[in-house]
Amino acid sequence: MAGSNSGSRAGPAVTIIMGSLSDREVGELAIKIFRELGISYIWRVASAHRTPEKVEEIMENSDSKVFIGIAGMAAHLPGVMASHTIQPVIAVPVSGPMKGLDALLSTVQMPPGIPVATVGVDRGDNAALLAAEILALQDVGLAVKLKEYRKMMKVKVQAQDEKLRKG
Amino acid sequence: MAGSNSGSRAGPAVTIIMGSLSDREVGELAIKIFRELGISYIWRVASAHRTPEKVEEIMENSDSKVFIGIAGMAAHLPGVMASHTIQPVIAVPVSGPMKGLDALLSTVQMPPGIPVATVGVDRGDNAALLAAEILALQDVGLAVKLKEYRKMMKVKVQAQDEKLRKG
Amino acid sequence: MAGSNSGSRAGPAVTIIMGSLSDREVGELAIKIFRELGISYIWRVASAHRTPEKVEEIMENSDSKVFIGIAGMAAHLPGVMASHTIQPVIAVPVSGPMKGLDALLSTVQMPPGIPVATVGVDRGDNAALLAAEILALQDVGLAVKLKEYRKMMKVKVQAQDEKLRKG
Amino acid sequence: MAGSNSGSRAGPAVTIIMGSLSDREVGELAIKIFRELGISYIWRVASAHRTPEKVEEIMENSDSKVFIGIAGMAAHLPGVMASHTIQPVIAVPVSGPMKGLDALLSTVQMPPGIPVATVGVDRGDNAALLAAEILALQDVGLAVKLKEYRKMMKVKVQAQDEKLRKG
Amino acid sequence: MAGSNSGSRAGPAVTIIMGSLSDREVGELAIKIFRELGISYIWRVASAHRTPEKVEEIMENSDSKVFIGIAGMAAHLPGVMASHTIQPVIAVPVSGPMKGLDALLSTVQMPPGIPVATVGVDRGDNAALLAAEILALQDVGLAVKLKEYRKMMKVKVQAQDEKLRKG
Amino acid sequence: MAGSNSGSRAGPAVTIIMGSLSDREVGELAIKIFRELGISYIWRVASAHRTPEKVEEIMENSDSKVFIGIAGMAAHLPGVMASHTIQPVIAVPVSGPMKGLDALLSTVQMPPGIPVATVGVDRGDNAALLAAEILALQDVGLAVKLKEYRKMMKVKVQAQDEKLRKG
Amino acid sequence: MAGSNSGSRAGPAVTIIMGSLSDREVGELAIKIFRELGISYIWRVASAHRTPEKVEEIMENSDSKVFIGIAGMAAHLPGVMASHTIQPVIAVPVSGPMKGLDALLSTVQMPPGIPVATVGVDRGDNAALLAAEILALQDVGLAVKLKEYRKMMKVKVQAQDEKLRKG
Amino acid sequence: MAGSNSGSRAGPAVTIIMGSLSDREVGELAIKIFRELGISYIWRVASAHRTPEKVEEIMENSDSKVFIGIAGMAAHLPGVMASHTIQPVIAVPVSGPMKGLDALLSTVQMPPGIPVATVGVDRGDNAALLAAEILALQDVGLAVKLKEYRKMMKVKVQAQDEKLRKG
Repeated sequence: MAGSNSGSRAGPAVTIIMGSLSDREVGELAIKIFRELGISYIWRVASAHRTPEKVEEIMENSDSKVFIGIAGMAAHLPGVMASHTIQPVIAVPVSGPMKGLDALLSTVQMPPGIPVATVGVDRGDNAALLAAEILALQDVGLAVKLKEYRKMMKVKVQAQDEKLRKG
Repeated sequence: MAGSNSGSRAGPAVTIIMGSLSDREVGELAIKIFRELGISYIWRVASAHRTPEKVEEIMENSDSKVFIGIAGMAAHLPGVMASHTIQPVIAVPVSGPMKGLDALLSTVQMPPGIPVATVGVDRGDNAALLAAEILALQDVGLAVKLKEYRKMMKVKVQAQDEKLRKG
Repeated sequence: MAGSNSGSRAGPAVTIIMGSLSDREVGELAIKIFRELGISYIWRVASAHRTPEKVEEIMENSDSKVFIGIAGMAAHLPGVMASHTIQPVIAVPVSGPMKGLDALLSTVQMPPGIPVATVGVDRGDNAALLAAEILALQDVGLAVKLKEYRKMMKVKVQAQDEKLRKG
Repeated sequence: MAGSNSGSRAGPAVTIIMGSLSDREVGELAIKIFRELGISYIWRVASAHRTPEKVEEIMENSDSKVFIGIAGMAAHLPGVMASHTIQPVIAVPVSGPMKGLDALLSTVQMPPGIPVATVGVDRGDNAALLAAEILALQDVGLAVKLKEYRKMMKVKVQAQDEKLRKG
Repeated sequence: MAGSNSGSRAGPAVTIIMGSLSDREVGELAIKIFRELGISYIWRVASAHRTPEKVEEIMENSDSKVFIGIAGMAAHLPGVMASHTIQPVIAVPVSGPMKGLDALLSTVQMPPGIPVATVGVDRGDNAALLAAEILALQDVGLAVKLKEYRKMMKVKVQAQDEKLRKG
Repeated sequence: MAGSNSGSRAGPAVTIIMGSLSDREVGELAIKIFRELGISYIWRVASAHRTPEKVEEIMENSDSKVFIGIAGMAAHLPGVMASHTIQPVIAVPVSGPMKGLDALLSTVQMPPGIPVATVGVDRGDNAALLAAEILALQDVGLAVKLKEYRKMMKVKVQAQDEKLRKG
Repeated sequence: MAGSNSGSRAGPAVTIIMGSLSDREVGELAIKIFRELGISYIWRVASAHRTPEKVEEIMENSDSKVFIGIAGMAAHLPGVMASHTIQPVIAVPVSGPMKGLDALLSTVQMPPGIPVATVGVDRGDNAALLAAEILALQDVGLAVKLKEYRKMMKVKVQAQDEKLRKG
Repeated sequence: MAGSNSGSRAGPAVTIIMGSLSDREVGELAIKIFRELGISYIWRVASAHRTPEKVEEIMENSDSKVFIGIAGMAAHLPGVMASHTIQPVIAVPVSGPMKGLDALLSTVQMPPGIPVATVGVDRGDNAALLAAEILALQDVGLAVKLKEYRKMMKVKVQAQDEKLRKG
């Protein structure tokens, strides 16, 4: 399941856990970025409440450098992941009927001692870019790609501006 | 540590877990009720994030009938407790700078399959009364006490009314 | 109207009251669980505001062990039910234009003395599972079924994970 | 307990019910207005949840024209009062740790068919003025007083303006 | 424009002002009630911000007993209406993209001295019933109709209950 | 009452209206800025609900270029001011028990056609600076002062940074 | 790209910057007003986060009198624009999944010293009218048009009222 | 100003920027952690709005690996920092009168492409621990310290539990 590998390590650089397959669309935003940047990843489904032992097992056995937890409602998954590792855990709160306010507060308001790096509601793409920024601290090639990605974004904004000005 | 014992079981009827000693004041509201109703209890401090294995250990080894989880902010404790048992888990969201909205949504918005019985923000007393109502289904003496407690509340309201009318 | 009977009692184990037929979809989530677990139930429509005497009558004459109140907006139904019994009352806030925030606060923020066990917005399923957990304290067979239900959930999450990994 | 009587009726023109003596400060804002305007009133303590039968009894036996319910948190009192009468019921949501949002939504979001006239959080004064406006429809003398009250408010604002301009 | 007349007065008993024709659907909920109860009314469009002088003119020249203001967003209309009269003004906050929270707070949080009787978001029906309750204080026939309306609601709830129980 | 005069006009450049003297502290934040920048102003107390005719009178008779309305709760004052002029009206929502959310939504969510320029809750200073920016479009001297003010702010931030680095 | 020119200056009177082309619909509400009032404008796409140097460049090189920033989510664009100019910057928060609450608070709650004039969520039209009001302080012809625009709005409301009364 | 140095690089491992000295208390929570873990840091004051060029200068000239931005209200600082680097930027929203909701949404809801790693309101400590987790990916000694820190937290919770059980 892992994509192309960005380093010499055995396992994928990033492990994504989604609380349910219904979070897949948000997870795909992350994966699209990982593919563009050539970062190896694996994505899994495991529930903080229904299969806590599986979350623990994934966390204990992974040699990924960065983790991403994607969950909605009372979104405990990223916090549970963080309680099993001292490696960075990124959280994506997923919107539902309460517009993501429940998931946002459930992930970001972690108690002192166990941090979770929360990005915006449904922002799987930004979670992946944040993971890439962390990995790029040890990967000059990836840093170059991230800079190119930023440039490409600038070009796109520029193109939108041109298009608008030409009516 | 357990209070007076309301039945023939070996352990306390109710196990209370607080996420931190800073939740003690809310826990004491529960304990006051348990003492009034003669319900045996034990209260513990264990953190869903800092000591998840201890929460699991308490849950696995307890022979309590009902559990109460008291926690603030991204309050995952009651949900983690519920993931380790099929016995009823009652949640008390604790207020903090965000006025308990974070803790309330973090406890009540549990995903399908793992229910948590949430009471009002900081309402340790109502958590204890709910636990008592559940225990009273098998304990006629406790049911009688609960009815007396209700009557006593009526008398108090009546007394407030008298006092007001007499100016 | 009652489903299959899980014990030797005369009436259904659980009485569900909905504030209006428009809450039916949420009620059906509960009933589906009761049928899977073989718990006897009855569901009724009665309004805390339009037919308070009927709510009272249902509560006074029922020999159910657990009650579920399902209502939206200024959702007083579960609180009114709780004021007529010392048995556990579970509340399901129903979402409407305000995304369930009105119903959630109206049910969960009960005053001291009269607890209501609130589950997540529109979570009829979790209300039924919470009722089952309470009933299972006196029903070993039901406890076994609840454990199987938990296992089945694990299997489902596992299957989602397999599916994802196989792409 | 009733104040001065503004008409020929036997009982007080307005009945105020507070959910608890802790709402007294808000009730006193109302009473101050009633005294200024010479409107007869009675104020009582009765709880929608702890003494519902007393709320019913007060409502059934009162010959007041207008009712005011004052309550906080899951503030069901005004709605319960309204379910027992076809006379106007005014609600004052009382603020607590959640800044009155819980009480406001619990009172104002009444279901179709049973209206409650909600005023601002903790605004016992405006509840009394609204009651006075309703009573003044049948009481020319009271209408005159209300007009004078409005003029007096204008004079006060004018005085504040003068004071400010004179530095 | 006025419907059937419930008293001996020259003008309609109730004047409804909507801030814009886009609020018409909510206004129609009110009118349906007035027609059922035989209460005379007139409905108008006038904006607190775009045509304040027209709002003033309507208020000054009306001999209606009760007023209803229907508006959304920063809903100032009912407050402006109330500033021009000592007769009861009922407010209906209308929902928009912010789910009515803006309109609700803009109407209900009136400053001391100028009350507005706020009903639930989009609840034109309850505004009309509240107006009817106020008018019924002087109209025994209307009081009888309101009692019948309550009974009819009970019958409807009862019918829903029967339907449900028969499956 | 007016401060120093920044132009050749007869009246003060800015008219501030506060809904009540209790908003004075917020108004003083504005006045401090006006004094620093040498902008002439007048400040008044007038209520949108208690003295609407006075608000109208002030607006009609003023030859100020810019207006500032300062009010809390259901803060209609700036909107009422805006309905009487085509000159820019700046709104300062004032915080109260609901933390300014009520005042913010009441001022900023104006309907199409009548704009109000809202600044942050209790930010009388920013209201004054915005007024100054508008006046500076016609006043080169004032523009120079505003640039100096910005530089001074930079210096202050720089000084804080120095202080911190020196420990 | 600029529309008709309302004065003798070389560049357009107003520069609009949108954070993304997805904000175009809101921008068009502004442009429609500018066309009706004959105000020259230019609209651009530039992102506070992706192309901050472009935002700076636009701001530094523009000789517009008023600026409008249109952005959603963590809407920093208007604040960044304001940090580069002492001319008035108007902000339009754009709604998204969180109903504009995120964008509203991100724009209106600016720190002391750098004001932004915020209008309602998605209210591009009011942003344009506010810009026009500011420009009209130096443009008698535009002031006349604004007064006519207000009259036209009154006529439209009047027409809605007529239509309603004729049924 | 930098603390002890955890690696062979010339500059401090982490650069903290606070929007104002009033955020110092939150910054100190971070620094306390850095001192305990022996991580080199520098802390600065620079404002996204008042001194944007200084923020840019700090970001461009820093050779820190991780950045922390601490700001309140419309908290743009972390987003501005992130727009100038491809290295990880951690955000701490600071609470104010709106209880941090404004700062939280302003930092976490970043648009696609420029991620910011948000931690809980006022949680300077968690920001520092997250920074440490990122640095530990390349620093085995730091990883060991982080594991010890976790153990120490467990011991503290354990001690609280003991204390409670001993009464």
